[in-house]
Amino acid sequence: MGDKVISLAVIRRLPRYYRYLGELLENDVVRISSKELSERMHVTASQIRQDLNNFGGFGQQGYGYNVEYLYTEIGKILGLDQQYNMIIVGAGNLGQALANYGDFERRGFVLSGIFDVNPRLEGVAIRGIPVRMMDELEEFIQNNPVHIAALTIPKTKALQVAQDLAGLGVKAIWNFASTDLHLPEGVVSQNVHLAESLMQLSYSLRNLEREEGKL
Amino acid sequence: MGDKVISLAVIRRLPRYYRYLGELLENDVVRISSKELSERMHVTASQIRQDLNNFGGFGQQGYGYNVEYLYTEIGKILGLDQQYNMIIVGAGNLGQALANYGDFERRGFVLSGIFDVNPRLEGVAIRGIPVRMMDELEEFIQNNPVHIAALTIPKTKALQVAQDLAGLGVKAIWNFASTDLHLPEGVVSQNVHLAESLMQLSYSLRNLEREEGKL
Repeated sequence: MGDKVISLAVIRRLPRYYRYLGELLENDVVRISSKELSERMHVTASQIRQDLNNFGGFGQQGYGYNVEYLYTEIGKILGLDQQYNMIIVGAGNLGQALANYGDFERRGFVLSGIFDVNPRLEGVAIRGIPVRMMDELEEFIQNNPVHIAALTIPKTKALQVAQDLAGLGVKAIWNFASTDLHLPEGVVSQNVHLAESLMQLSYSLRNLEREEGKL
Repeated sequence: MGDKVISLAVIRRLPRYYRYLGELLENDVVRISSKELSERMHVTASQIRQDLNNFGGFGQQGYGYNVEYLYTEIGKILGLDQQYNMIIVGAGNLGQALANYGDFERRGFVLSGIFDVNPRLEGVAIRGIPVRMMDELEEFIQNNPVHIAALTIPKTKALQVAQDLAGLGVKAIWNFASTDLHLPEGVVSQNVHLAESLMQLSYSLRNLEREEGKL
């Protein structure tokens, strides 16, 4: 792979390729043509060839792609060949839902701590991990390197907590609060904005009704 | 507004504008220039002008945008000027987290039912709404029109349940299962793929480390 630069648009599509390739692997599929993959993924074969050409000449005429090789290489690009320690800040329903996803762990995202401000949650164990109070956060991070913090807290608290985490050396914030975190250089974030996702759905629904002439 | 066609790229950005404009409204801001808005949103003023020009000439030189008007118009485009009845299928942590978001209701997404297959959850009330069993789904939908179904169920069940819902007349699926739902014409869906979001974050983190020369 070396230092080849891959466009952001391709990068954004990689997790989806990774998921499909993972499913093929689970079904013991050894190789697949761009045509077959395109039919499964509902994108054009030419898009797939263009995207995957970034990973060298693994799509050979008459052979197709080596599923395991491609899966592994895409995994490396996505940083999935290493383990990350993750904490969850906010042990409400959403935080608990994230904590209970065993799937993340399988991909190398290891949950190491859960934090909240609610004293009634103190010590409650989620998948064996006790909820700790926020005033233990600093000491915890000093003793247990944290790569990623998921923020499942109200939007009014999110920026301050994210800044505090950045100050403690956490470099990646997975933000579920309905606000954009403008963080210092050297800290990355990824948003999951549920309300915005739901608005896109209502737009599509409205559009469908428009097309069907119901409005 | 009429029948003006707005590009998909702009549509995707609208929920974010809607959120910022909503916050401005809450803070009693009556008008805002594209420059001020661009500074808040961390996008260029020219991008904002281009995007919002789709909504007519509301950005007047020397005046800026009328916040309430723009908020209302974008809301209409997004279909937020009507009420939607929503059900949640899957009453695990994630389903419960969605059920507990009062914010969705404020935007017009009214939770009318929660369903699960787990008999231990039967009748348990979440925000006053009792969890019903899946075999009650058909009758429920016949008696209570459902616009949107959120699927917070395992990926192995998601497609079948989505198809069943489509068969019962539900036109919009908000899919949290880690799979793509290829649904019949006339049914729209929006995915929230948490694992893919986390992979994008690990990509960004890896990339940051590469830039900082730590790899």
